[in-house]
Amino acid sequence: MKVAVLGYGTVGAGVYRMLLNAPGMEAGPVLVRPGKAVESFMVSDAALIFGDPTVDAVVETLGGLDPAYSCGLRALEAGKHFITANKAMVAAHGLELAALAREKGTAFLFSAACGGGVPFLHNLALSAETDRIEAVSGILNGTTNYMLDAMQRRALSYADALREAQSLGYAEADPTADVSGLDALRKIQLACAVAFGILPHDGMLCEGIEHFTAADTADIRSRGLVCRLIASGRRTENAVSAYVEPVLFPRAAAESSVFVNNNMARYMGRRCGSIVLMGQGAGRFPTASAVLRDLAAARQGARAMFPENCRSAEADNREAVHSYYIRTGGSAARRLPLRSVLAQGDVVRAVTEPMSAGKMHALAQNIRRDGNDLFFAALEEEIC
Amino acid sequence: MKVAVLGYGTVGAGVYRMLLNAPGMEAGPVLVRPGKAVESFMVSDAALIFGDPTVDAVVETLGGLDPAYSCGLRALEAGKHFITANKAMVAAHGLELAALAREKGTAFLFSAACGGGVPFLHNLALSAETDRIEAVSGILNGTTNYMLDAMQRRALSYADALREAQSLGYAEADPTADVSGLDALRKIQLACAVAFGILPHDGMLCEGIEHFTAADTADIRSRGLVCRLIASGRRTENAVSAYVEPVLFPRAAAESSVFVNNNMARYMGRRCGSIVLMGQGAGRFPTASAVLRDLAAARQGARAMFPENCRSAEADNREAVHSYYIRTGGSAARRLPLRSVLAQGDVVRAVTEPMSAGKMHALAQNIRRDGNDLFFAALEEEIC
Repeated sequence: MKVAVLGYGTVGAGVYRMLLNAPGMEAGPVLVRPGKAVESFMVSDAALIFGDPTVDAVVETLGGLDPAYSCGLRALEAGKHFITANKAMVAAHGLELAALAREKGTAFLFSAACGGGVPFLHNLALSAETDRIEAVSGILNGTTNYMLDAMQRRALSYADALREAQSLGYAEADPTADVSGLDALRKIQLACAVAFGILPHDGMLCEGIEHFTAADTADIRSRGLVCRLIASGRRTENAVSAYVEPVLFPRAAAESSVFVNNNMARYMGRRCGSIVLMGQGAGRFPTASAVLRDLAAARQGARAMFPENCRSAEADNREAVHSYYIRTGGSAARRLPLRSVLAQGDVVRAVTEPMSAGKMHALAQNIRRDGNDLFFAALEEEIC
Repeated sequence: MKVAVLGYGTVGAGVYRMLLNAPGMEAGPVLVRPGKAVESFMVSDAALIFGDPTVDAVVETLGGLDPAYSCGLRALEAGKHFITANKAMVAAHGLELAALAREKGTAFLFSAACGGGVPFLHNLALSAETDRIEAVSGILNGTTNYMLDAMQRRALSYADALREAQSLGYAEADPTADVSGLDALRKIQLACAVAFGILPHDGMLCEGIEHFTAADTADIRSRGLVCRLIASGRRTENAVSAYVEPVLFPRAAAESSVFVNNNMARYMGRRCGSIVLMGQGAGRFPTASAVLRDLAAARQGARAMFPENCRSAEADNREAVHSYYIRTGGSAARRLPLRSVLAQGDVVRAVTEPMSAGKMHALAQNIRRDGNDLFFAALEEEIC
């Protein structure tokens, strides 16, 4: 199988190097920007890839919506397998690319777009083909997990944890997409589409870790709990729920044993029960490994991750109900339906009555709009 | 895809029921013993399955070496995919069946034989195709994990834990194959073959949980450790190591968060890093789910779990080096190379110098042969 690679950044170069050692794989040309083709295996003219009948598969590692999307169209039109690590592009154009791949009989796979090196989407697709998947969830952003872990196991402040993640290359100079939960949300969109055949496009909820403080860490720790940023999706009556928020787990939960920048994915099937997958969520070779496994699967005959007739729909977060742990000012706390107050004073810590994620996120937005600080995290009761 | 099922016990009936609901799958005839064909979908004449050209795949859930093995030969000879949950049969005859399947271009897959509902071997095979796997390990026996968990989290005695596992149907009336570690050893044999292309056939080591007591539980707990029964395999210079023994983990390790009768598998690849998979290790539908995923993979085009040229070789356990936690009588303890003594008296608890699994298991055998009681467990230092 001859494989061309679009882009030669961290992931692209990792894929190229792995291809050199993978039996039965041939590392084809690597597309780079004009003037950057400094090695004999590099080309700057895309026609040399899409027009080459000996290229069986194209791996896209350019990032961004375009030209990643148009490259996907060209690869699939030319009858080549198309493998990508680009979550934003798959969320935006995946349904169209999947339909085209189906028409052409080629593979369109994107394991590396969700969970990095964790073999999540591939297994989820295989289970969704044979079982009814009820829920998906996971720690899908390595940057925020690194920060949460540093704050909780090493008592770093939020600012120090962020600085450390940046100095190690885990967080960008502008960390917004990670710490706001947006990156994890994009990934759970893809998982919902694979699991349920519904790609949520609007109405998703996103609470990141920006309001989590060292004082929250200490209080949560004293209660035997561990905070993780969890992306969740679940079947609802007419659509799916899809949201990201901090969740508190007992120390013995699998989620609590996910350290540093690792990722974890969990899915629950009617027949298979709860399946948990853990591994490195990012990095050159873990991500490249996921791409290589997709290539091997495509070579065997795997073609699609989205089920046939996969559609897009608005998310519905009214059925996802939890109690929430909250920390806010005394007057703001009175605006929440509290079940029990843990600590009173200028700062209130409390547990709310069970309510939907939709309601909690809306209340938080209102409370913050009025100038109050608020941290909230769902309480996970179902563990094993 | 029309699928025939051999046997209608717990797993066979589960597979049949899942086939009825799986899109694109047709539940073919189910083979039962003569006189037992009480339903219209049951047959007692194997020729009605192997001679039926409309049957695409055969699922074997008979157990035992024969006629499971001869059924595998007949299915593959007839050009049908052969899926089995039978670890002992695959360990004994898998290389021959794999070669035959390769010759015939049909699938020979056995995910359910190792890890129950955990998607272990399928992922391991995909990673082994594209990466260099260095090590495999796991909690692969649900019965002993249930017992260890009951002893450690609920302070049951060994006898009570065993009785409870038996009353819940997790342990057989004769629990030897589980508690001795033999069941887990058979499973790691298969994982070694998938990961390294070497099926260890002799020289494996097997220490079960029979020597673990309530007093050991208490001491280990006080040190912040959790005991699990771990099956391990690793590349060595000329072959592979393959052994089963109790291992002590820090409470925060992923292994420590595997409760009741769940299973967990871990593999370490040069490029993908450490990948952990957890789920239900046994039971009708989790096991049937693994069979259905294999069928879906075969339908897509997956053919083999053992790599080409997979061979059989004697295991070599001289390179697998750990320090061990030991508990034994005072005079017996002097026969072990101790690094530090934790508790002295009639009963000694101590940590040994690092030594190979081969040496530790041999010392234990000698010490016990002389009438001494001894519990030992490897100390796991590499966690995340």
